[in-house]
Amino acid sequence: MAASAGPEIERLIALLSKMPGLGPRSARRAALALLKRRDQLLLPLSDALSQAATKVRTCQICGALDTQDPCAICQDQGRDPALICVVEEVGALWAMERAGAFRGRYHVLGGLLSALDGIGPDALRIGSLTARAGAGEIREVILALPATVDGQTTAHYLVETLARTDVAVTLLARGVPVGGELDWLDDGTIAQAMRARRPA
Amino acid sequence: MAASAGPEIERLIALLSKMPGLGPRSARRAALALLKRRDQLLLPLSDALSQAATKVRTCQICGALDTQDPCAICQDQGRDPALICVVEEVGALWAMERAGAFRGRYHVLGGLLSALDGIGPDALRIGSLTARAGAGEIREVILALPATVDGQTTAHYLVETLARTDVAVTLLARGVPVGGELDWLDDGTIAQAMRARRPA
Repeated sequence: MAASAGPEIERLIALLSKMPGLGPRSARRAALALLKRRDQLLLPLSDALSQAATKVRTCQICGALDTQDPCAICQDQGRDPALICVVEEVGALWAMERAGAFRGRYHVLGGLLSALDGIGPDALRIGSLTARAGAGEIREVILALPATVDGQTTAHYLVETLARTDVAVTLLARGVPVGGELDWLDDGTIAQAMRARRPA
Repeated sequence: MAASAGPEIERLIALLSKMPGLGPRSARRAALALLKRRDQLLLPLSDALSQAATKVRTCQICGALDTQDPCAICQDQGRDPALICVVEEVGALWAMERAGAFRGRYHVLGGLLSALDGIGPDALRIGSLTARAGAGEIREVILALPATVDGQTTAHYLVETLARTDVAVTLLARGVPVGGELDWLDDGTIAQAMRARRPA
């Protein structure tokens, strides 16, 4: 790829190109940028990666990533222990936290049900979710899953599974996103927003 | 950025977002991908970065990056020692090597002259280029600089500087790129290709 640049650079480029968002070309650019900024970027990044590898773990309760287990959110006494927000992945949990619109706790499924990819309920953290929901402390489980086929299939399955417990199960609202122009929205979103219209 | 994910993850995301091609959003995605593939990606990348930091250095002759100094290209006896190809950066050297159309040696300037950015001849590896060109072994210096204002300014300056030596100075040809449709080409390229037309 970078002919005669030595095996160390080749290996660095090969690994960088496995990161999402970086193809072979941008991985080369990134490797060069790192090598040019050895002390400001290359060494700190190497250190940050090894720190993350040793210190970051998965929360045994909710499945989030943190340096402590249980994670800071599960330990936070200021959060409502009666609310669980179910998300597909840690990235969605972070997005929810950035929005700052939820002050309960989380449950990370680790994926979505998918017949095509052969992902069944046992591959996800569903058992631990029903156990948490059935333990008596939980009042409401909010399904914050993506508005995709797999997301809806998973939500449907969870609604049925959680029906055995006596917690309320809710879904995120659908509608026109903030800043969304009708021209650019898909028909499904417009139809959902119309059906869910509310008094002004 | 990733609220309550712990300082290690925050730092990793901050460093990743400094890489070219990764913004804050894709840096978060990359960090998650790394943390999910700890043994296959996170640890090997950390190791590759520290290996690169300790082993890769700048060739004292041509300015390329390699684990040996002089670099493999400068040491390669199969390459024509009478040809020097001048490039802006190591990335351009790699691109030239991938094209496989040059079997001489290189000289990496480390940038381009730029009045706007205050980059003068002393900030570039021009002194060592004229020293190499004047040492008697060199027959031709090929200026493979970008077709930008700064690239052309730098080429012009090098042509004048190298006129004091008795090496031939040449420039890469300009014209329609392979696969280039005239519809999509800028006027300047079309005009240059027309002026430099050749018999069929």
